[in-house]
Amino acid sequence: MQTINLAEKLAMIDQPWQPKIIAELNDSYVKLAKLKGEFIWHQHQNEDELFLVIKGTLTIRLRDRNVLLHEGELAVIPKGVEHCPDAPQEAQVLLLEPKTTVNTGDQQNSLTIQPEWI
Amino acid sequence: MQTINLAEKLAMIDQPWQPKIIAELNDSYVKLAKLKGEFIWHQHQNEDELFLVIKGTLTIRLRDRNVLLHEGELAVIPKGVEHCPDAPQEAQVLLLEPKTTVNTGDQQNSLTIQPEWI
Repeated sequence: MQTINLAEKLAMIDQPWQPKIIAELNDSYVKLAKLKGEFIWHQHQNEDELFLVIKGTLTIRLRDRNVLLHEGELAVIPKGVEHCPDAPQEAQVLLLEPKTTVNTGDQQNSLTIQPEWI
Repeated sequence: MQTINLAEKLAMIDQPWQPKIIAELNDSYVKLAKLKGEFIWHQHQNEDELFLVIKGTLTIRLRDRNVLLHEGELAVIPKGVEHCPDAPQEAQVLLLEPKTTVNTGDQQNSLTIQPEWI
């Protein structure tokens, strides 16, 4: 058990769209990521996913509307809901999701990663 | 699905040691709480618990040492580990824990609450 400093961990991330694991609890991972530009449309069939913006602004595009998140704001994307994160300027976010969650959800492609601990 | 602003939600909390639910995902609740003074020693038999400090400073006393958390820092208290949160000055925290988690853990007393949504 240790103190985990979000700013220190974020400083260790240099690539966008590469979430890194910083903690685990129960069946979930807490991850940090830097987001920049538009990601891809995807969904997580069995996992709700939480986005908390630590710095910057994030738009989560849904098929029928957008959810805009500023610093200090969070949203939960329910399982099965298609979404596309979009950050015209870099956004730094904390993610919470089950350990089984794949970053690109039901889309497996070159953006799909195996997250590492930092 | 909605944008949840932590500062706005925290402004709705007036009593310390009364965590309020602001979101749910998978089998867990995200809660916010204001902590002031020393709580009680307790443990959660089956649930890991995450503390993220939004504002202020929190000490989590363990039997063998203390974990000090400043703003922007988090720690996970593993299941079965006795702990006693202590905030000499008010601390505002985000908690993440399974829905089954009772705030006083294995101690049931006048501090035990049934958390409400805000």
